[in-house]
Amino acid sequence: MLANGKHYRTIWLKQPENRIVQIIDQRFLPWKFVVEDIASVEGMCKAIKEMHLRGAGLIGAAGAYGMYLACLEAPKNKDFYRYVLEAAQKLKGTRPTAVNLSWAIEKQLEAINQASYVMDKLNASLSNAIAIADLDVQMCKKIGEHGVQIIEEIAQRKGGKPVNILTHCNAGWLAFVDVGTATAPVYEARKKGIPLHIFVSETRPRNQGASLTAWELEHEGIPFTVIADNASGHIMQRGMADMVIVGCDRCTKTGDVANKIGTYLKALAAKENNVPFYAAVPSSSIDWDISDGIREIPIEERSGDEVKYVTGADEYGELKKVLVTTEKSKALNYGFDVTPARLITGLITERGVCKPSELGDLSKN
Amino acid sequence: MLANGKHYRTIWLKQPENRIVQIIDQRFLPWKFVVEDIASVEGMCKAIKEMHLRGAGLIGAAGAYGMYLACLEAPKNKDFYRYVLEAAQKLKGTRPTAVNLSWAIEKQLEAINQASYVMDKLNASLSNAIAIADLDVQMCKKIGEHGVQIIEEIAQRKGGKPVNILTHCNAGWLAFVDVGTATAPVYEARKKGIPLHIFVSETRPRNQGASLTAWELEHEGIPFTVIADNASGHIMQRGMADMVIVGCDRCTKTGDVANKIGTYLKALAAKENNVPFYAAVPSSSIDWDISDGIREIPIEERSGDEVKYVTGADEYGELKKVLVTTEKSKALNYGFDVTPARLITGLITERGVCKPSELGDLSKN
Repeated sequence: MLANGKHYRTIWLKQPENRIVQIIDQRFLPWKFVVEDIASVEGMCKAIKEMHLRGAGLIGAAGAYGMYLACLEAPKNKDFYRYVLEAAQKLKGTRPTAVNLSWAIEKQLEAINQASYVMDKLNASLSNAIAIADLDVQMCKKIGEHGVQIIEEIAQRKGGKPVNILTHCNAGWLAFVDVGTATAPVYEARKKGIPLHIFVSETRPRNQGASLTAWELEHEGIPFTVIADNASGHIMQRGMADMVIVGCDRCTKTGDVANKIGTYLKALAAKENNVPFYAAVPSSSIDWDISDGIREIPIEERSGDEVKYVTGADEYGELKKVLVTTEKSKALNYGFDVTPARLITGLITERGVCKPSELGDLSKN
Repeated sequence: MLANGKHYRTIWLKQPENRIVQIIDQRFLPWKFVVEDIASVEGMCKAIKEMHLRGAGLIGAAGAYGMYLACLEAPKNKDFYRYVLEAAQKLKGTRPTAVNLSWAIEKQLEAINQASYVMDKLNASLSNAIAIADLDVQMCKKIGEHGVQIIEEIAQRKGGKPVNILTHCNAGWLAFVDVGTATAPVYEARKKGIPLHIFVSETRPRNQGASLTAWELEHEGIPFTVIADNASGHIMQRGMADMVIVGCDRCTKTGDVANKIGTYLKALAAKENNVPFYAAVPSSSIDWDISDGIREIPIEERSGDEVKYVTGADEYGELKKVLVTTEKSKALNYGFDVTPARLITGLITERGVCKPSELGDLSKN
């Protein structure tokens, strides 16, 4: 999608050598557009853990490219596979909630295993990393094509008035390799000329809505309004949102959805006020092994400092971190919450839109 | 209550002259403890509007003291009452949602009207302002005495483990003249030796939880943890909160409660997870003229800049404002939302604890 009028993906290989991974360092958005070079597994682990990049799909692609970096730096002898396996463990350990990360790393291990010689393994990890990134883009595009139908129906009912869509966090293109999931139907609807307006929930504590989704929509020219997370209930109660679309970090086979902390509150408000609530769920985010999201999805606990300190731009445009509590305050910082399937109107997958209860049928196709 | 070990109210008259109102300028909390002198109606309007002070009860007391300042500065002739009436209008216009403000100003107009001569009117406005402030303190104390019974019951069930109470915004002593409403039962429980732990919801966009409630509890020595507003649903879903107590800016005769934006989301999560949800409601916050909170309570819309900019302390302890969105982002900023009575377990009033449906009986006593 567009950044300053130019098309970008969120992750790519530096040309022509193909030995360095480049990413948009999202810690500097929306204030600065910074491209970071990542040349080692260690660098990739740091980038994932410290959230230079984030988002379910992008973490998966980063894991895949990280495995390629592991193959590059592994000794080219009998220790090759041991080194690669250790790197896989390190990469998997960086973020526990999103299932895409371990999915992509497992895919890489399979590809590496299937090749016979070390150099073939290296090549396999490269072409497979690219394939995983491309698959991510294709999945997002399909989600857009299916999801736009929901927006079209609402647009028809509204007879020319903008469709108001509330979203949370950033499940936009910055969270994937391109296009995004929750935003894919939005970008598709814009292509079709449907008038739109997006409510962007700021998404404390890391403000991915205010900083990333707002930045994305601004650069794509889609009208939006930022709101405090607290305002989402009021906005739905007043009939100001026609639908909610959120992303998904892990979905159980029964349709429970783990997503950025605060999603559950929006789902409760949507249910209460009869606002359709959709989660955009690429099948790479579905964990077919579990059925009780609240009991079985591990919820990442991050540093309380993310709650205590807020980063923003000062009057000179320089990034500053400010303390918003007392110095001694203890803070608790869960990264995700689980929305039970019964609160979800539908899941928008790359294969079509279904009710959470129909998700099992997908696995049979 | 205590600030740096010394007892304070939030508003008082500078001694010995009694001609200047002093307040704790809450814009500097939790970073600096600043006392502000207010010597005119204009100054008081500014202090209320720009939130040097805030909170239902304190706004009421500030309105009352503001009316005393009006009497002080009014011409001591036939224009006295016209001047005072105009001041009343100005003061009432500063914040539209809290009913305490107009309640206190009306009480002052009555007192002023009942006195015959200008100097009597002035004296009446002084003694009545003090009486309104004292009444606020008495109401809060009573709310504490009634509310503590709910905490005691939970404490008995938990057999010595701390009672976990989730609160939102600041309905503590900083929001009243002293003691507070939502915190009154907490302070009362501490007196009785009940082990407690408070979850403080940070309360974007102005962070009154993170800055004020955290500061209050720290200075009173009560254990607490700050959470992002988004985390409250997850915390209730995991059974980590035994009850919720929030304040109230306006309550209908049917028990609908307008309170700081985000309260409604907490009430939804509490209902869903069978967590008792209480609002502390002094009768000065009850609007007996209305019965449908969602339709009839005006919701203040404040500047979007409160969402776009966050104030905190930089590494040198200096207050800094940082931009958390893109510069061009539009932001919408509702100050309050309405929680329908059906989501509320009970109202803690100065006359006792009742179900919202029983509120009407109170007016008959």
